[in-house]
Amino acid sequence: MLPDPDKKTVLDPFGTSVVADYERLYKEFGIEPFNPLLSKVSNPSFYMRRGIIFGHRDFDRILNAMQKQEEFAVLSGIKPTGEFHLGTLMTAKEIIHFQKQGAKTFYCIADVEAYEDNKIPFEKSEKIAVDNVADLLALGLNPKKTYIYRQSKETRVKDLAIIFGRPVTLATMKAIYGERHIGLYLSALIQAGDILLPQLEDFGGPKPTIIPVGIDQDPHMRFTRDIAQKFRRKYKFILPSSTYHKLMKGLDGSPKMSKRQMNYFTLHDSPEIIAERISNAFTGGRATIKEQHELGGTPEICPIYEICLFHFVEDDDEIVKIYHDCKTGTLLCGEHKKQTIDRVLGFVKEHRRKKKMFTDEARKILQLEQ
Amino acid sequence: MLPDPDKKTVLDPFGTSVVADYERLYKEFGIEPFNPLLSKVSNPSFYMRRGIIFGHRDFDRILNAMQKQEEFAVLSGIKPTGEFHLGTLMTAKEIIHFQKQGAKTFYCIADVEAYEDNKIPFEKSEKIAVDNVADLLALGLNPKKTYIYRQSKETRVKDLAIIFGRPVTLATMKAIYGERHIGLYLSALIQAGDILLPQLEDFGGPKPTIIPVGIDQDPHMRFTRDIAQKFRRKYKFILPSSTYHKLMKGLDGSPKMSKRQMNYFTLHDSPEIIAERISNAFTGGRATIKEQHELGGTPEICPIYEICLFHFVEDDDEIVKIYHDCKTGTLLCGEHKKQTIDRVLGFVKEHRRKKKMFTDEARKILQLEQ
Repeated sequence: MLPDPDKKTVLDPFGTSVVADYERLYKEFGIEPFNPLLSKVSNPSFYMRRGIIFGHRDFDRILNAMQKQEEFAVLSGIKPTGEFHLGTLMTAKEIIHFQKQGAKTFYCIADVEAYEDNKIPFEKSEKIAVDNVADLLALGLNPKKTYIYRQSKETRVKDLAIIFGRPVTLATMKAIYGERHIGLYLSALIQAGDILLPQLEDFGGPKPTIIPVGIDQDPHMRFTRDIAQKFRRKYKFILPSSTYHKLMKGLDGSPKMSKRQMNYFTLHDSPEIIAERISNAFTGGRATIKEQHELGGTPEICPIYEICLFHFVEDDDEIVKIYHDCKTGTLLCGEHKKQTIDRVLGFVKEHRRKKKMFTDEARKILQLEQ
Repeated sequence: MLPDPDKKTVLDPFGTSVVADYERLYKEFGIEPFNPLLSKVSNPSFYMRRGIIFGHRDFDRILNAMQKQEEFAVLSGIKPTGEFHLGTLMTAKEIIHFQKQGAKTFYCIADVEAYEDNKIPFEKSEKIAVDNVADLLALGLNPKKTYIYRQSKETRVKDLAIIFGRPVTLATMKAIYGERHIGLYLSALIQAGDILLPQLEDFGGPKPTIIPVGIDQDPHMRFTRDIAQKFRRKYKFILPSSTYHKLMKGLDGSPKMSKRQMNYFTLHDSPEIIAERISNAFTGGRATIKEQHELGGTPEICPIYEICLFHFVEDDDEIVKIYHDCKTGTLLCGEHKKQTIDRVLGFVKEHRRKKKMFTDEARKILQLEQ
């Protein structure tokens, strides 16, 4: 695939993804394709331009607010269970983008969910959260314009969960989350509270809110939008909007990065481990160099190409060149891995340098003692 | 049945009750009969003496604390859905009794439960709560020695619910509460938080706690004791103790007082309504006066006798006399109803007079504006 100069999309939005069945998402779940809106976005993000954000719900509402310079909010969060990895990095960049477009910014440390779902005690998640917030600040989130909070300490969110619980049937919960313990269902209600928090009177009342998420998070959005609808009269909620990004493959070529398979790296891994993981990664290359020269590689299935596309090659023309060089057999996997290791280690080194300066501030934001 | 001077029980504890199958409660559910402990209680309450409190769990622990003058707590609460009736009155008297025996006293306004279970909005339950607290103070609860709170405002209770939710399976919830909405399950967790609140560090740490309840509330006790066991290591909880009282029949002779059947009265009903309800009540009388003179009445099935036994005849000798006069056909139903109406209206009049003086204080305790 080559870039089409008439479209802002530089790459085929469906070119690399684990979500094979987009048509089903559009038809059955009511997610809208993002592409038709792209030309209306005055300053599209990296992920929008590259088609990594491929779908949305009610993004028109956000677009409208941005165009008219009306108030809108962006919310995201992290489950403080470990270090920033390439998935959390993606969401972080997305909210920073919306912050730069003028969104009131909310960032939730989902420590209740970490406890209910992963059994992480609050004393432990507190420490992890400091690290996560320092990452965010190093990435460029403006703390002066962001409300960063822990679920366990935010009374309004807990109270919303209590209020939202009344009309939610067990059947609904089981359909979304399966047969789980009650704490997990409770954390789902709290998450709905997070998403609707920016619309409370304390934060200036109802407003369009954008939640940038991975496509795997859509059930939460549907659940929360349903709750927003049920409590529309009481709170005047505007149904929250969402954008959906594709999920990254594991470095072993499997459909998902996962802790269990160790097929990814975090921003805290040592340079040696990062280099090793990339070196050992699956690629879209051919069996022999000769074949690759003749037939070219398959970047669509290649996790190395994907981490470049999603994170480490900022310039659109440059990523198109890499795609092209791979396709034509000019760029071989060994060389591409080497380049990618250099890019990643360069980024990580610089990120860590910045991050060190933000640890104290992160503790202060989370109201923890120094 | 006649009084046995060797026992402190004045009446057959199993004489009047809707809970027919006590043996099953003892054998299958592990509730202990109260009677064997009675002689060890230095100052037994009205309900203990009369066998209305017929069972317990771990009351020995409370007895021990009372005997050694060690710290212990009593907790009860009310779902603010309506006015004090003869059931809530019973629990209120029980906690006042334990307060007088030196218990640290906790009283919970279960407004979250009123919302989740009865859809009562918080703005409404707030008003009802003022009335309920004024009733309590009029009955003799010492507010200086009681922590009275609303669930919706007590962060510690809500936080305990979040913590307790993690190990509770859906199967457990369904076994106790049936297939209900999530809010109801959440309110069950909050209730467990209420019962264990007196044992938090903020209130002086672990201590024996007595929860006087109707026998229908035992599933909550079992649930909470199970949670206390699960979190024993973290909080050093002592399993809460409970006493069980019998439930009052409806005035129509049906097994339970119920709003739907209008077979009871509240302390707020007009004297006319109270008199009418008592006049129209079912009794344990015979078909004709002649028969009643010959065969005597059956106080065991009579709701009029029961409200005297449970509430309106303070003196033990006097209630025994009434029992005897009914049994022998000396006291006829019409006359007994008339006496009972006088007693009830006398109590209600005096109660209302006292209550008026406590409304402002009740508002203050609930931190509501005057």
